[in-house]
Amino acid sequence: MKIPPVKGTRDFYPQDMAVRNWIIDGWKKVSLRNGFEEYDGPIFEYLKMFQIKSGDEIVEQLFSLTDRGGRELALRPEITPTLARMVNQRINSLPKPIKWFSVPRLFRAERPQKGRLREFFQWNIDIIGVENGLGKCLADAEVIFATVDYLRQVGLTSEDIRVKISSRELLADYLGSLGIPEEKLEAIYVVLDKKNKLPAETFEQMLGEQIPDNKIVHKILDFMTVDSMPQLEELVKLKSKPGEYSGKLDVKLVLDNLDMMGVGDFCVYDPSIVRGLAYYTGVVFEVHDTDGELRAICGGGRYDDLLRDLGGPPISGTGMGMGDCVLEMLLEKKGLLSKQVSKKELDYFVACVAGFGKEAYRIIAKLRSMGYSANFSYKTASLSKQLKEASVHNAKKCIIIGPEELEENKITVKDMATGQQELVDYDEFLSGSHSA
Amino acid sequence: MKIPPVKGTRDFYPQDMAVRNWIIDGWKKVSLRNGFEEYDGPIFEYLKMFQIKSGDEIVEQLFSLTDRGGRELALRPEITPTLARMVNQRINSLPKPIKWFSVPRLFRAERPQKGRLREFFQWNIDIIGVENGLGKCLADAEVIFATVDYLRQVGLTSEDIRVKISSRELLADYLGSLGIPEEKLEAIYVVLDKKNKLPAETFEQMLGEQIPDNKIVHKILDFMTVDSMPQLEELVKLKSKPGEYSGKLDVKLVLDNLDMMGVGDFCVYDPSIVRGLAYYTGVVFEVHDTDGELRAICGGGRYDDLLRDLGGPPISGTGMGMGDCVLEMLLEKKGLLSKQVSKKELDYFVACVAGFGKEAYRIIAKLRSMGYSANFSYKTASLSKQLKEASVHNAKKCIIIGPEELEENKITVKDMATGQQELVDYDEFLSGSHSA
Repeated sequence: MKIPPVKGTRDFYPQDMAVRNWIIDGWKKVSLRNGFEEYDGPIFEYLKMFQIKSGDEIVEQLFSLTDRGGRELALRPEITPTLARMVNQRINSLPKPIKWFSVPRLFRAERPQKGRLREFFQWNIDIIGVENGLGKCLADAEVIFATVDYLRQVGLTSEDIRVKISSRELLADYLGSLGIPEEKLEAIYVVLDKKNKLPAETFEQMLGEQIPDNKIVHKILDFMTVDSMPQLEELVKLKSKPGEYSGKLDVKLVLDNLDMMGVGDFCVYDPSIVRGLAYYTGVVFEVHDTDGELRAICGGGRYDDLLRDLGGPPISGTGMGMGDCVLEMLLEKKGLLSKQVSKKELDYFVACVAGFGKEAYRIIAKLRSMGYSANFSYKTASLSKQLKEASVHNAKKCIIIGPEELEENKITVKDMATGQQELVDYDEFLSGSHSA
Repeated sequence: MKIPPVKGTRDFYPQDMAVRNWIIDGWKKVSLRNGFEEYDGPIFEYLKMFQIKSGDEIVEQLFSLTDRGGRELALRPEITPTLARMVNQRINSLPKPIKWFSVPRLFRAERPQKGRLREFFQWNIDIIGVENGLGKCLADAEVIFATVDYLRQVGLTSEDIRVKISSRELLADYLGSLGIPEEKLEAIYVVLDKKNKLPAETFEQMLGEQIPDNKIVHKILDFMTVDSMPQLEELVKLKSKPGEYSGKLDVKLVLDNLDMMGVGDFCVYDPSIVRGLAYYTGVVFEVHDTDGELRAICGGGRYDDLLRDLGGPPISGTGMGMGDCVLEMLLEKKGLLSKQVSKKELDYFVACVAGFGKEAYRIIAKLRSMGYSANFSYKTASLSKQLKEASVHNAKKCIIIGPEELEENKITVKDMATGQQELVDYDEFLSGSHSA
């Protein structure tokens, strides 16, 4: 009986796995050098944890399951609620700020689309426990810096990608000035987040359902589409009072910090960025390809209330999530994958004349225990066929065992790149004193 | 609202994650040096894939879920069926033998017990596509060698662990000689697998339910408990015909191969090893702690029919699975974890006198882009407090930025191990020409 894989999932054959490992290893390396420590949680959590704060859109896309005890569980669609739960559990013993990263496998029960699968990997970095306003802007900037640090590391430039930064607080302030009540904000954010994903007409219609006054709808559209940097300068003039810190202007402070960190050329203020998740409260951002052909490469922002809403103290956090699917599409398009993902290779391939298998197994076992990768042929084939197999394995060196060699207690070591052969003393080689 | 984690799952705080990464990195390293390539499949598959061949025990422990399209899915309790599905999909293009490994996250909806959680990681290695009898025994031996290669690498010796090897074919031959019909074998294997996990009385009673004849029950018990190595020698004499290969004697050939590979001292024939999974057809094995205090550390065996039963050609496979839970318990008990799992560390901690934050961010960003791990304090604290924070981070070097230094366009680099300080030119340092 032939069973297919489930739609929206991926099989990782060795060549696919090499790409996945290269992406994930890069995420881990950049996280560590930016001072983040790795954590992870379970693949499933109580369903209600996601219902509390992630917002309707994500809850509609949950894979839910019921265990034998009748508990309602869900496969995690994101890891931030798990992070908040874990931090809350040890809130008193964890030194702050908490700078953690994770590469969770996540799940969404939606119709698979280009760059959006039902199962994917996501790099997450978060900074939790920075409470003063200026510190928060530094934490936001550090999250964005680490994001750019990775994207730059894999070869993307400010020609390829743009970090678009905005602020929920600033947007709320503007919507408030138009007379929109606070309790309507969450629903409006969900719609505004779709601005660049839907045809203009559909989007305006959806926004009209939330805001019946057409004049206000157009004011909002103007706010989100004007030339943004001058708008920000104007807002700074308008909202800042000398010597007084205002959260509404965080986006300006974050941009200044990013400039100092040397990645200002990647970043821009863009009021059309809103993010779909319900828990964001401050600065939010997305990274897009400058061609505008793909979905967001990643997104993130500040969440001041999430830990409190999940039963913890009112501690602030800020973070970023980057999935592997859109990233891989962009890297592929820019030709950055094939030249960077390493090919499989082998330190030694051991070939032997028929009847000398025992010696071959002995040498292979020894090489592996010494830390070298080593392989051999399961087929009883001619030496030339075995050497061909060695090439398929991309072996650096080939060891040849035959009667003439063993008579003198020697083996032949062949360098596969240069073709040079060398007779080496068998015992000396096995003792590890022959340098590889 | 406070939400707990789900019972039987684990939260991996950074110190737990360090252990998990160390175990998994070791598995990967040993797999690669033994010539295995990495693959992975999805976390969920169609439920019926597991129902076909894994055996009742595992199917009872499945986490099942239904997607929006009404498809019945299950979280994978093992990866071998996925491996068989993936190999079948590309059977004609994959060069054989296929030597693949994976470290899947697996799920079991059973009551959590010591060393058995509802969510865990499992190292899997498999060799598929070796068809002749002697080659199969070599493949079985290679799987066991790689297993021992890892266990030895992490510091376990033949004093600590024992590889117990047996054969389903040999057992079937013996049970057949007692008049037990073939169609009853699968159910009997499930019971026999419990021999070392249940009290003797309960076990005998369960076996009695399958085999009403008490004399036969006791013969089987004798077969499974006698001094095993002489029994094997006797069987070899009894079953082998000169010049003729017999699958019943594979266990002897596998042991001989393991001897040649230099791990014979770890291995023993033990007819009480049966394995619970339904798909095993030949040599089976488990690794146990010699103290006999823990569950099996790992197990595996040969499956001749699995690919065919999942819609592919009749191609043979052999493999091994090792979970992380029992392994971690054993390593902990033997004191092998704390001395091998590396502590967190940082290349540079950047400390600055108040007011020089900007310079600090600039240097940190630069260091990270150069590939060094670097961190700093979010708090505006005294230099001595910042140096204390550097120690908490286990920083190798500390950079100190203050007015006196910057007046001369220099920074202080302090070696945290020796306490030695050095004044370094600021621009030279940023250009990367100062060696770290």
